[in-house]
Amino acid sequence: MTLSKPRGTRDFLPEEMAKRRKVENILRRVIQKWGYGEIVTPTFEELELFTLKSGVGVIGELYNFTDKGDRDMTLRPELTAPVMRAYVNEMQSFPKPVKLFYFENCFRYERPQKGRYREFWQFGSELIGSNKPEADAEAIALAMTMISAVGIRGDLNIGNLSVLRHILSQITADSDIQGQIMRFIDKKEYEALDAYLAELEVPSDLTGQIHQIISLCGTDGFEAVKKARAVVGQMPELDAFEKTLHLLAAYGVTDYTVNFGVARGLDYYTGIVFEVYADGLGAQKQICGGGSYKLISLFGGGDVVSTGFGLGFDRIMEICDIPAQTETTVILVSKPETQLEGLKIANLLRPYVCVQTDIMGRNFSAQLNYANTVNADYVLIVGEKELESGLFALKDMKSGVQEAIGLDDLIGKFKMG
Amino acid sequence: MTLSKPRGTRDFLPEEMAKRRKVENILRRVIQKWGYGEIVTPTFEELELFTLKSGVGVIGELYNFTDKGDRDMTLRPELTAPVMRAYVNEMQSFPKPVKLFYFENCFRYERPQKGRYREFWQFGSELIGSNKPEADAEAIALAMTMISAVGIRGDLNIGNLSVLRHILSQITADSDIQGQIMRFIDKKEYEALDAYLAELEVPSDLTGQIHQIISLCGTDGFEAVKKARAVVGQMPELDAFEKTLHLLAAYGVTDYTVNFGVARGLDYYTGIVFEVYADGLGAQKQICGGGSYKLISLFGGGDVVSTGFGLGFDRIMEICDIPAQTETTVILVSKPETQLEGLKIANLLRPYVCVQTDIMGRNFSAQLNYANTVNADYVLIVGEKELESGLFALKDMKSGVQEAIGLDDLIGKFKMG
Repeated sequence: MTLSKPRGTRDFLPEEMAKRRKVENILRRVIQKWGYGEIVTPTFEELELFTLKSGVGVIGELYNFTDKGDRDMTLRPELTAPVMRAYVNEMQSFPKPVKLFYFENCFRYERPQKGRYREFWQFGSELIGSNKPEADAEAIALAMTMISAVGIRGDLNIGNLSVLRHILSQITADSDIQGQIMRFIDKKEYEALDAYLAELEVPSDLTGQIHQIISLCGTDGFEAVKKARAVVGQMPELDAFEKTLHLLAAYGVTDYTVNFGVARGLDYYTGIVFEVYADGLGAQKQICGGGSYKLISLFGGGDVVSTGFGLGFDRIMEICDIPAQTETTVILVSKPETQLEGLKIANLLRPYVCVQTDIMGRNFSAQLNYANTVNADYVLIVGEKELESGLFALKDMKSGVQEAIGLDDLIGKFKMG
Repeated sequence: MTLSKPRGTRDFLPEEMAKRRKVENILRRVIQKWGYGEIVTPTFEELELFTLKSGVGVIGELYNFTDKGDRDMTLRPELTAPVMRAYVNEMQSFPKPVKLFYFENCFRYERPQKGRYREFWQFGSELIGSNKPEADAEAIALAMTMISAVGIRGDLNIGNLSVLRHILSQITADSDIQGQIMRFIDKKEYEALDAYLAELEVPSDLTGQIHQIISLCGTDGFEAVKKARAVVGQMPELDAFEKTLHLLAAYGVTDYTVNFGVARGLDYYTGIVFEVYADGLGAQKQICGGGSYKLISLFGGGDVVSTGFGLGFDRIMEICDIPAQTETTVILVSKPETQLEGLKIANLLRPYVCVQTDIMGRNFSAQLNYANTVNADYVLIVGEKELESGLFALKDMKSGVQEAIGLDDLIGKFKMG
């Protein structure tokens, strides 16, 4: 019988993994240079962690199950809730800001389709402890630096929920109703929105303000802020947003669209929200989403704001064109009589270069053939003549040039790279 | 309400992750220099994959569950079966040998106890396609090189099941009975073994051979092979084992115990088996186990032998004493008037060094205090005077030395490391 991998999952073979690790390491190098430290949380969590954050409606999308102890568990669908839980459990006394990043697999249970997998990877950050424009600007600038470091030109969309929330607070204090309005906006269901607002008997000036704000969109952010002020008047949140745009300019982030209609559908976002799109295979695809939110108090911690984003690693892999990390490879060819000496030489070279010796019991010419099959960079011949003379034949398989080289020079050659 | 992590799991915070990544990267560098490529398989698999390999008795130890599609799934308990499944599905046509490694989390459902977690990490290799002594020797030498690369002195035990299997084949062709005998040996339940052999009416000379072989143990491997020959006569498997020991000597692996009683309890091991122990916190702990086995035909592939091993990464982390990978960190201190210029300078330095700028809205002296709190390596002051003169104050926080340095020199300083 032949078993196969579970539906909607993937096996990543060495060629693909070499490329994925290369891209992962580029992203790591960037985020570490901004002072973020890595966090790893459990692969599964209690289901309640995610229903508390996103409501029970989210269960339909989760890869949840009942464990052997009859507990409702789920494979994590994302990392923000687990990281906030870990912050509440273990990091509340850390000096602020707490700057974290993660690179982990996430899971969802939905009908698998092209490019949508049940196990997928997210690279993200959480900047905990600041509600200042500096935090918002750092999160956006960091995301854009990471995206451009892997050679992707991303289209950045920035929104700010505080203006909409300000209008909604004049309609109702009921957060469920506010959430429902936000969901209509997020899904651009404007007819349903109007019907709902009419049902709530919202005064026409506020309905008008909502429509003015959500249609407020443009590449001149400062102009957009000015127009927003014309709708809702002076607001400290608009001043802060303007400050964020000035900080972004200092970071060199000037190419974006400000869109006050970006709602991101999730109740816990408080101020800035942003999304990055990139030209993928065919269509524009979202590769990054983030914003500022208050989850820590929801999970039993203090009233602490955080700003974070997640990069869709699988989509980045689809789009980016980074060559795989490869090892320079030497195939060491020996004969039965020189096999043991060959292994000793392999030992001496391996700190500096990848060396493969025969383990198949192949004869001399079959070993040479293997070097061709796997496109080796070098063939090193360790025969009786070579051991006697102390000079080994090293053939550069790309150029075809062959040299006779002593052991010290051989080590030196690969030590230098 | 406060949620916590699931029972038997861990959160790894940045300080610990920096150490774990350092050790992981050392192991990666070694195994890649031996020509192994990384494979990643799904976190969960069909339950049948593991019951096929280890019998239904294994279910009690697994973190298995029924998914929303009513399928019996399990979080993987180990990587050998998934990698062999992936080989059968996708790699049978690859040139031999296929040399794979993995570094992944695994899961088990058992009462959590000190040092035993429900989610744990394994670093391992699979060398597919060779039944030669060269493959056995390479697997052992590679494991020992990895263990010593992270500064651990491991005690190596090598066994060989082919001798026992040879005796058992004279008792019965029934693999269930053979398996039961192997399990008694593995667990050192010698009274139960004798009772079972008596029940089977095994002739006393064969019972005697079994006892002679399983008590055959010593640090001189060649002597042990000689004694085994005295018990069972000439066997090609003993010749191959002797060859393995010669190859190991060429790799510099000469310090080990040969123990013909190592059975590893699993039916699918065919020839060599090995285990490595190290002195941990208090007691000797197993940190590595491996051997050669036939699983590929069981999973629907050809009659291909593989040799592999797994390193218990969590135990290695308990034992090894490798300092964490750290970033040299510069805290860039600015004033409201120079904040934007400060961000531009941070941007220029970040390709080469970790730079943190204030995101908390702290004043000048609070920013300096923060640099002390987090034990920064350097403080870089970007004030109005500095911007005017083009010379920035860089204070080395370890030595206390402060210098005035221009932007180009600053970049050059960190570019060089």
